[in-house]
Amino acid sequence: MTKIKMKLNCPMPKLDYDIITMGHGSGGLLTNRLLDKTIFDILKNDKLETRHDGAILPLSGKHAFSTDSFVISPIFFPGGDIGELAVNGTVNDIAMCGAIPQYISLGFIIEEGLKMEEFWDVLVGIKYACEKAGVQVVTGDTKVVERGSGDKIFVNTTGIGVMHEKANISAKNIKVGDKIIVSGNIATHGVAILSVRKGLEFETTIKSDTQNLNFLVKDLLDEFGDYIHLFRDPTRGGVASTLNEIARDINQGILLKQANLPIDSQVDAACEILGLDPLYVANEGLFITFVESKYANNILSALQKMKNGENAKIIGEVTHEHQGKVIIESAIGGKRVVNMQVGEQLPRIC
Amino acid sequence: MTKIKMKLNCPMPKLDYDIITMGHGSGGLLTNRLLDKTIFDILKNDKLETRHDGAILPLSGKHAFSTDSFVISPIFFPGGDIGELAVNGTVNDIAMCGAIPQYISLGFIIEEGLKMEEFWDVLVGIKYACEKAGVQVVTGDTKVVERGSGDKIFVNTTGIGVMHEKANISAKNIKVGDKIIVSGNIATHGVAILSVRKGLEFETTIKSDTQNLNFLVKDLLDEFGDYIHLFRDPTRGGVASTLNEIARDINQGILLKQANLPIDSQVDAACEILGLDPLYVANEGLFITFVESKYANNILSALQKMKNGENAKIIGEVTHEHQGKVIIESAIGGKRVVNMQVGEQLPRIC
Repeated sequence: MTKIKMKLNCPMPKLDYDIITMGHGSGGLLTNRLLDKTIFDILKNDKLETRHDGAILPLSGKHAFSTDSFVISPIFFPGGDIGELAVNGTVNDIAMCGAIPQYISLGFIIEEGLKMEEFWDVLVGIKYACEKAGVQVVTGDTKVVERGSGDKIFVNTTGIGVMHEKANISAKNIKVGDKIIVSGNIATHGVAILSVRKGLEFETTIKSDTQNLNFLVKDLLDEFGDYIHLFRDPTRGGVASTLNEIARDINQGILLKQANLPIDSQVDAACEILGLDPLYVANEGLFITFVESKYANNILSALQKMKNGENAKIIGEVTHEHQGKVIIESAIGGKRVVNMQVGEQLPRIC
Repeated sequence: MTKIKMKLNCPMPKLDYDIITMGHGSGGLLTNRLLDKTIFDILKNDKLETRHDGAILPLSGKHAFSTDSFVISPIFFPGGDIGELAVNGTVNDIAMCGAIPQYISLGFIIEEGLKMEEFWDVLVGIKYACEKAGVQVVTGDTKVVERGSGDKIFVNTTGIGVMHEKANISAKNIKVGDKIIVSGNIATHGVAILSVRKGLEFETTIKSDTQNLNFLVKDLLDEFGDYIHLFRDPTRGGVASTLNEIARDINQGILLKQANLPIDSQVDAACEILGLDPLYVANEGLFITFVESKYANNILSALQKMKNGENAKIIGEVTHEHQGKVIIESAIGGKRVVNMQVGEQLPRIC
């Protein structure tokens, strides 16, 4: 457990079992005892406490609703764990819609034999990420599968958030000339995970960029409203796949400047050694935004002044040419097409 | 595929692969192609089509929010499949809160090697159940794990529904004298699944009771409003575990009449042969409701006239005696305590 999380002061409760057993998924006594002593205790809030089949939420206006399942391996990695990742991932998906994340549901699929300590550490990760992002877990579900039918723990999070009143986020708003900004260094998460993958371990200080982006998004929308046309987080498939999806959807071209892609030098070196193109490597706490050209520099400056936005860069723009395609221009002016990822580069990266 | 589902007229599209591969979970080209040709095509609606990270929903008033992951084995069983079950399960959890289910999110965790045909059949089950329940899948996520790290397919559904204006559902409203009604035959789902479990197959015509309960709940609330104090669906852990949870929460006793428990004779016989107590066997399309004593007979009659409510019975009542416990009285007047399920009777039943 990291030092930061230790500060939450969440000592593991005394439990009757050292590992999760099939009985913990029975819906009976063991399930109840486990949930009481762990989930209900560590994540407590008034909505979770009703313990009904669902939470009752007062909602009004337009809301974003998003789901994500997390199957990352290993479940603990430099810079985070599957619990933190699961909260941040859904928080960010909600934020990418231009909304303020509020409520989260939590679905666990646990492999029999998971150490109770590991389960607890995942819960601590969830609590930590919820507190940082300002969201509440309000309902949940826990299933257990036999050894060999799962892999330690899978986590689904589904979130609800109220739309920011100034948000007008839609690929339809993107037009030729729009600038493309990335909020920070690319390829960090994927390389951090690879560094601890079985059979591939290498020494590095690279940490996953998993973090919540909702406050950055809110602050940008507060200030720039509908000059911001789209937010998207380039997770699986990396920046290349996300931009290809957008180019296809808007049926315009996207031109990137290789020299402007922000990347940590260690990550860049690791990609070179491993033969990976950083454009395809997964990110977690990173977004791409398409903005009105005229305000791009203002938006960039604002972002660079924000926490976790310091490395933001304008990486390209929307063009008439090359409709539906992503093109990258090298430092010396050569151009090549960047395709969507084919096949699987790094399985179970999120 | 069942005849009913065939009527949906959903021929499987031509796909490049016969099985799901790791690449289908990459977030890249294969993921996009698969989703386009399958999920986006078969489940299409205006909200799903925006293809953003989340759906934007206009919501107003109190809403119920509930999540459930489904890990049932086998994924196809007499009377249903994991897709149908996943939709019905969350639809019912929302209904149990006294709400009208509207929107569903869909999270797949697929084991590499799942036959495309099986994946398609699960999607057809989802479409079928959504149409029957009147809900829309508005957002989703698909992950793929390596062979041996999952088991065919796990499905998470998370739902949102608007509260019925007459609903006042809370364990706090339950009082001594309240009657307990069950909406139909118990133990059917669990026995249906057991009949096709590897190593245990036996011949029977018993089918899972998986079905949506939302219209029954709506009709009851329309007519009886807050004379209905609680709805709960006794899935995992069966009627015994659900009633024990409620007895504990309200700190009153629950007295059941053995003779009044509705059960299909084939299911009863199977339970006897297998040494199972039907009170602990999982149900899916069944609810228990706690109602104002004075209106219990009216509510029962109304329920018995509804489709899928024909076998409803008053099975017991809330008592001052035996606080926090569930007691059952046999046909000849003997009483015994019904404990919450300990350990696991039938793993992966939902």
